[in-house]
Amino acid sequence: MSKKYNVAIVGATGVVGKEIINILEQRNFPIQSLTLLASKRSAGQVISFNEKAVKVKVLEENSFKDIDFALFSAGSSISEKFAPIAAKSGAIAIDNTSFFRMQDDIPLIVPEVNGHAIKNHKGIIANPNCSTAQLVMALKPIHDAATIKRLVISTYQSVSGAGKDAILELENHSRYLLKGEDSEPKEFVKPIPFNVIPQIDNFVDNGYTKEEMKMINETNKILESEINITATAVRVPVFISHCESVNIQTEKELSTKKVRDILSTFPGVTVLDDPQKSTFPTARDSSGKDDVYVGRIRKDISQKNSIDCWIVADNLRKGAALNAVQIAEYMIANPSK
Amino acid sequence: MSKKYNVAIVGATGVVGKEIINILEQRNFPIQSLTLLASKRSAGQVISFNEKAVKVKVLEENSFKDIDFALFSAGSSISEKFAPIAAKSGAIAIDNTSFFRMQDDIPLIVPEVNGHAIKNHKGIIANPNCSTAQLVMALKPIHDAATIKRLVISTYQSVSGAGKDAILELENHSRYLLKGEDSEPKEFVKPIPFNVIPQIDNFVDNGYTKEEMKMINETNKILESEINITATAVRVPVFISHCESVNIQTEKELSTKKVRDILSTFPGVTVLDDPQKSTFPTARDSSGKDDVYVGRIRKDISQKNSIDCWIVADNLRKGAALNAVQIAEYMIANPSK
Repeated sequence: MSKKYNVAIVGATGVVGKEIINILEQRNFPIQSLTLLASKRSAGQVISFNEKAVKVKVLEENSFKDIDFALFSAGSSISEKFAPIAAKSGAIAIDNTSFFRMQDDIPLIVPEVNGHAIKNHKGIIANPNCSTAQLVMALKPIHDAATIKRLVISTYQSVSGAGKDAILELENHSRYLLKGEDSEPKEFVKPIPFNVIPQIDNFVDNGYTKEEMKMINETNKILESEINITATAVRVPVFISHCESVNIQTEKELSTKKVRDILSTFPGVTVLDDPQKSTFPTARDSSGKDDVYVGRIRKDISQKNSIDCWIVADNLRKGAALNAVQIAEYMIANPSK
Repeated sequence: MSKKYNVAIVGATGVVGKEIINILEQRNFPIQSLTLLASKRSAGQVISFNEKAVKVKVLEENSFKDIDFALFSAGSSISEKFAPIAAKSGAIAIDNTSFFRMQDDIPLIVPEVNGHAIKNHKGIIANPNCSTAQLVMALKPIHDAATIKRLVISTYQSVSGAGKDAILELENHSRYLLKGEDSEPKEFVKPIPFNVIPQIDNFVDNGYTKEEMKMINETNKILESEINITATAVRVPVFISHCESVNIQTEKELSTKKVRDILSTFPGVTVLDDPQKSTFPTARDSSGKDDVYVGRIRKDISQKNSIDCWIVADNLRKGAALNAVQIAEYMIANPSK
């Protein structure tokens, strides 16, 4: 019989935590025991897993005894404190927050792209930002084939990236607005219903937001590259899935046929690209799905060796929960010697 | 007493036609008589103008007798047929459709940018596409100061650009979706509520859409430039106003301070750009306003002599109705010799 694992989820009642639970179930992850952890406020809730009721416990320093994989998705300060404790207890901490991502000795992993880098872990492995994960999935085969020199990215990011309350705000405030009633934004700096907001996370000194700098820095760490990147991250009134309009300049020329071919054969990427039939991915098409979808692939008429494309994925799945579970699966399939 | 003019609006019951009527009223356009024209289906409606009821008449070949300005916004085939008839009758036809825009002998005008080119008109003057008008307003002072070499544009365009039925579809289908009911899209190729759709207008052979090619070609015609441009035009679930994420590469270097300065002094442009206070334009901020708003101005860290910015305007006003009325105003203020 193949081995089974003791898995803990930190932040089990959050949007990503719940998606991790769904994904472990859907993928028949080899689970011995599932420990659901959260803050005092959320502890006591009962969540169904494989048709059994699992009670959410309070996260404590001794929560990680005998745990093999601890999946963190409860905010940076929680990961900062508890991921090292989990690692010290012998667990592999797979962290979905930004806290460890850019640390030199922490691997930042998208298994299909740089699974090999997991081998350098010291108990903690970082999961990239949602907008980065889907981006590098589409970029990796292109970078391998033609070496990417520069990227200009504009994003269309759903509210679920901002958590449960943000989802409720879009839903409720949209309802109010359709009745002609206004409402004060709480989760966003401006009203989100029927609006677009060009700010995600706080601003840094160079005029970019942290979200934009995450995409820029994390992409180069994962691809082990020095691509010149600029990005504008924008929140749109969509519940699930992020879309990205990406302009890619490569060193070598690539035909659009070649781009479609190499993307189609890359694991976890699906090309949806037949303009004459209006075949391209939209946010809602990709919600609840695992793959990263790419469409609108065309030669950029403004510059040599450049292509435009449109990259879409479920930000809660490949952008967060699915990728975290895939990291654990990769480690099981590729045990270190 | 200053002269007053006989004005006709073709497509008076459409979204843009109605906005033209509002704007003529708000700006105290010197009107002698207002003739409202539409198809048989819409004729007979009564619209209030300056507190008087004006009955919409059927558009006919003899509708333009004694008309000084005929503002067209009823579709390309109507303009193709009737704008030359209006011009022949002695009116100035100001056309908001794409039909005449790229014809060599037709001026394509945004008054603040290239009002001087009106002088070459032969009775027909074209109004640019909504996404072009706001773009060239922000680009003109930058191009004059530093010569733009290349643009990478991604748009976030509201449904009002697609007309009355598109506005109703977003409103009604959003309401259904919030009740958990699905609905078949009619005005869009995919569902628009809580979604983004990377297609506006039909595709052409190079993989771009007509909307994207309009932005590219019209921008260079208006700026009398040969800027290399790529664009991705995307529909978002917003009622009014288009947003544009624009990456601008210039020949000469420009500081962000300089960019803010030259934009601030350009007529019709307002800079809203203080990231630390979350000051930047959003779609809803600019709805119902005349100016083009620019924010998120920053040095592009990926390339020399490049800046990123975020350009927002009411697509029905500066993008259509306001610009058409401003063309007439410019001609009144600058009579040809």
